[in-house]
Parts: sequence; C-alpha cells; structure tokens
Amino acid sequence: MSFETIQLATGREMPSVGLGLWKIENAITADIVRSAIDCGYRHFDSAADYGNEIQTGEGLSAAFRDGAVAREDLWITSKLWNTFHHPDHVRPALEKSLRDLQVDYLDLYLIHFPIAQAFVPIEKRYPPGWFADPDAPNPTVQTQPIPIIDTWRAMEALVHDGLVRDIGVCNFGVSLLRDLDNQAEIGPAMLQVEMHPYLTQEKLLRFCDQSNIAVTAFSPLGAQSYFQLNMAEASESLLEHDTIKSIATDVGRSPAQVLLRFGVQRGTSVVPKTSNVDRLKENLAVFDFTLSDDHMKRIAGLDRHRRFNDPGDFCEAAFNTFFPIYE
Amino acid sequence: MSFETIQLATGREMPSVGLGLWKIENAITADIVRSAIDCGYRHFDSAADYGNEIQTGEGLSAAFRDGAVAREDLWITSKLWNTFHHPDHVRPALEKSLRDLQVDYLDLYLIHFPIAQAFVPIEKRYPPGWFADPDAPNPTVQTQPIPIIDTWRAMEALVHDGLVRDIGVCNFGVSLLRDLDNQAEIGPAMLQVEMHPYLTQEKLLRFCDQSNIAVTAFSPLGAQSYFQLNMAEASESLLEHDTIKSIATDVGRSPAQVLLRFGVQRGTSVVPKTSNVDRLKENLAVFDFTLSDDHMKRIAGLDRHRRFNDPGDFCEAAFNTFFPIYE
Repeated sequence: MSFETIQLATGREMPSVGLGLWKIENAITADIVRSAIDCGYRHFDSAADYGNEIQTGEGLSAAFRDGAVAREDLWITSKLWNTFHHPDHVRPALEKSLRDLQVDYLDLYLIHFPIAQAFVPIEKRYPPGWFADPDAPNPTVQTQPIPIIDTWRAMEALVHDGLVRDIGVCNFGVSLLRDLDNQAEIGPAMLQVEMHPYLTQEKLLRFCDQSNIAVTAFSPLGAQSYFQLNMAEASESLLEHDTIKSIATDVGRSPAQVLLRFGVQRGTSVVPKTSNVDRLKENLAVFDFTLSDDHMKRIAGLDRHRRFNDPGDFCEAAFNTFFPIYE
Repeated sequence: MSFETIQLATGREMPSVGLGLWKIENAITADIVRSAIDCGYRHFDSAADYGNEIQTGEGLSAAFRDGAVAREDLWITSKLWNTFHHPDHVRPALEKSLRDLQVDYLDLYLIHFPIAQAFVPIEKRYPPGWFADPDAPNPTVQTQPIPIIDTWRAMEALVHDGLVRDIGVCNFGVSLLRDLDNQAEIGPAMLQVEMHPYLTQEKLLRFCDQSNIAVTAFSPLGAQSYFQLNMAEASESLLEHDTIKSIATDVGRSPAQVLLRFGVQRGTSVVPKTSNVDRLKENLAVFDFTLSDDHMKRIAGLDRHRRFNDPGDFCEAAFNTFFPIYE
C-alpha cells in the first residue's frame, strides 16, 4: 500500500496529504495555494473560520485558468462555522464558502465543532469567530440550543443538492459520533481531529476504522502550530524529540516527514500547514519510504494525551467563557 | 455549608452520601440495606444491572414494615440498562425495577450508558448484562441504532406519569450532555460518573455546575472496587496513598472518610459501596469535619486521569467487542 489516498465510506478517494490552510496569512495564501498545486498538492483543507477562503479561491482559480489542474483533479474540504448551525443558515454558509473559493461544489464539508454559537449575519462580520460581539467590553461566547442532528439534516441536504460530495464532522468523540451515526441518513464519512504522536487517540482511531469513518489528523506535526499562539512550550516540539530525530536518521528523512508518514501509515489523512515552498515539497514527499513496525510502535509510545488545540481553554482566556468540548 | 445534601435543578434535595449497591452479593443485600437505614442512610444507588434489586427491595420493605423509615424519607435511584433504550422498553424496564424494589416511584432514574444494546426480553434473561447471547460460542456485545433523544423522550414521559421524580444520565461527556440538553424538554438533572482523586474530572464538574446538572461520583474511593475484578493494581490504592494518609492524620479521620469528604466538599454526591456495617457508619460520618483549602488542593493534585471502570476495555476482553465510550 502506498497510502497516497484514503477511501471514504462513499467509495471516493481523498489524497492523504493535504495542505492545511489554517493560519496562512491572507497576503500570501493565493501564492501558496498556487505553488502547492505546482508541487503536486491535490487536497486543500480550508474552513470559513480560517479567514482566507477568498485568497484560497484566487490561488485555485489561477491554477484552473492556466490549466495546471481542473476542478475535478482537486479535493477541497471546507467547514461549517459554529454560528451557522441553524438549519436555515447551513446552506447560505456553504454558498459563501463556494463563492469565496470560486468553485461550484466541495468534496467534503465538515461541521467544525459540536457547538452552536449565536448567529452572526455574513454581512455583519465574517468570519464571525468565537465571540458574540467583539466591541462589547467583556465579549463572551454565546451559544444557542441547536441539536446536532438538525444541523446534520441540513448537511445531508447539501449532498442531495449536489453542492457537496461528502460530509463529516470535526472534534467529535466516540459517543457523539455513535449518536449521530444512529440518526443520520448519510453517516459521517470523515472525522477531523487533532492527532500526532503526543495525542495518538488510538481508541478513537480504532472506533472510526470499525465504523467506516475516515480520519483526518490536524496538527500532525504536534506543537508546531501552537508556539506562536503561546499554546505550547518549546520543550514540547516533536520535531526536536530524540525518538523522532533518531528514526528520521534511520530512514534518511526529516523529522517532519517521519511525523507525517506516521500519520498516513496509520491510515489517516494529514493536513500540515506551511507557508514555505521547500516545506511544501518536503511535506508531500512521504510516499517513497516506509516506517517499520518497530518505528511505528516507538512513535505511538510517545503518546501523552497532550491536546494543544482546546478552544475551551482558549475561550476562557480570551472571551470570559468556560467552554469545554473534549471532557 | 454542611454538604449533607445536594440540590437538583428541580429544587429537590438528595442526601449527598448514598449506599452504592453495585457488587453487593445477593445473599446479604437485604440485610445490608436494612442495616444502612439503621445507620442513617437515606440514599440508595441501585441499577437493574446490579442484579440485586429484588434483595434491595426486601431490605427496603422490611424497614417500611417495621416503621424505621417511610418511603418519602428515602432517595432511591435506579438505572435503565442498555438493552431497554427503545422507547417502547423504557417504561417496562422502569416498572420491573419498581416491582423489584417494591416501591411505586423512583426519586431518580438514570440512563446507565450512552449505548443502546440489542433488546433482551425480561422473561428471557434478567438482568441481561453486556453480551448478546451468553450461550453463543463467541458472545459479543450487540448494539442497535437508537438515538439518545428517543430514549430520553421516554424517560421524560416517566416524569410526566409520576413514576420518577428526576431523570439523568451516567457516563456522558460534555458534548453529549450539551446536545441532550439542547433537545430535552426536561434537562438531565444528574450526571453520574466515575470520580475520585485519580480522576478528578475538573472541567466536567465545572461544566455541570455551570449547566445546573448535579453530579454523583461513583467509585469515590478509587481503585477499591476494582482489585477483585483485576481492573486495578495494588499500587493504585488511594486508601494507601501517602497524601491521603497524611491528611487523614491531620483531620483525625480515616483515609476513606477523607476521600468521601473530598467528594462531598466538591459539591458532588458520593455512593461508596460496602458490605461491612462498621464501614457503613464510617462512610456516612463525613459531615462533622472539614478539609482545608490546602487539603482540597493537595488531593485534587493527585489527578492522573485514571479511569478504572471502562466497559469498553472490559467488553473487549470478555466479549470480543471493541466498544469505546469515553474517547
């Protein structure tokens, strides 16, 4: 097995390495997307919340215009933000992402969090983020009681209407996935969660395998994305971890390639982000070497249940709202 | 605050220390229940799955007969087993528990797990346990796709019909609780989960406080219930932990009393089990001393995310079924 693609329950094949677009600055997003396509990327992991879908769309349409790729050569994922969970808002939110990305369908549309926030009209503020009113003296996260199944029914309608090929969720645990699957007409085809050697989520992965739910690992390089946000300590770098460096030496690859290969060899998709063209190439070059069973075991043994991305913590610090998700 | 009771969202007061009936042998259950009432217990934590509700009912009715207590002096909790999640089966399951317990209402009825197993008729096997057919050569756990909200609607009907005063759930995490609460007409009044100094579940507890969901800690003594089941190592005993023993010396109480007081002083109910009359008394005597803030902090600092009771692991070992719940 080359692990170059993973298959979804619907039979469609998704390139296992995608470019994660979170935190790529607007000013360079179009160029990065265009370069990524030249490097061979065929999978882009976007979201309304990332705030750069317009620029992503510019990069994509430049590539379509000059014939580098056609729309059907690409796998494009986007995500429904928390403020659009009301069934009446799901389709307008998707249509906004389609307009921004300049495409007429998505390959995959995901519920970004199992959390419904108060609605913010697109024309008022977009993307709306976590807080209810950024101008309030003490902004808080405001939720509304929308059952997940109601949002999901609207997601299913997008599939029926041909606007989206596959649908799934992010940041769900097993019991929530099971309850959704028990009610869904179209079951979730994908779970996207944080996953790396410090947070291997072995049981969650096994559960998804067993349930025919494909898995995408976000932050597959671990702490890397979180240093600039002060959400990780320098000592938590996986790229600097002795075990990873030693295996990298064994296989003659970079630590980043070892971490990404670990992800794809577990059968997940990985969506590393980079703004650097050399790293774009490096991150994609993980299909011409193999980690041994022993390598895989040693890497999995690093697990320390370390979740870097917990918006519950983030919201408490920034928005005066205690909002746990993963407990 | 004495912490002798905790208040539920409906305004009703539950005695914070209850007798946990899990694993009390049938032959002695009636006597233990009767003795517990004499010791001052007014809260009994039962479940269909414990397999001793008939004997519990004998103990209760002996106390009613001889006038030791009246029904309305007691708080009686029971739990809906996984095989009865279909809305048509919820009321018959509750009525079976009422018959066995010889009472005409419950104070609290809880969904035991967020898992719907295949139905087993009461007359075929009761309690039905985790496996589908114990006589099969390779028994497995068989589930059925019943949405939690469907089961919950039937739970709400029990309240409307006066058979149950309060309803709640066990073994749910925050996202599942939030999604249930978003759909419920009567929100869950209680969450019962494993909770002790090695599994403090700080965020889950804060979430429940914030959401007006009371919390009952099962296994408040930690590993104690799990040695005989080979689900804990001797080294994991909290009763033998130096910090607990040192605080016990400070306050002139037993380590068990320190652990239980920790639970009630956090605002939770605790339901320790014992088959020993002296320990019955000891476990109830936690309202005439206080742990200092420093004691509370030192105990909370022992947290190691150690869950002893994970039926997912248990089912895999015993019933050839991988069945995660808490991931």
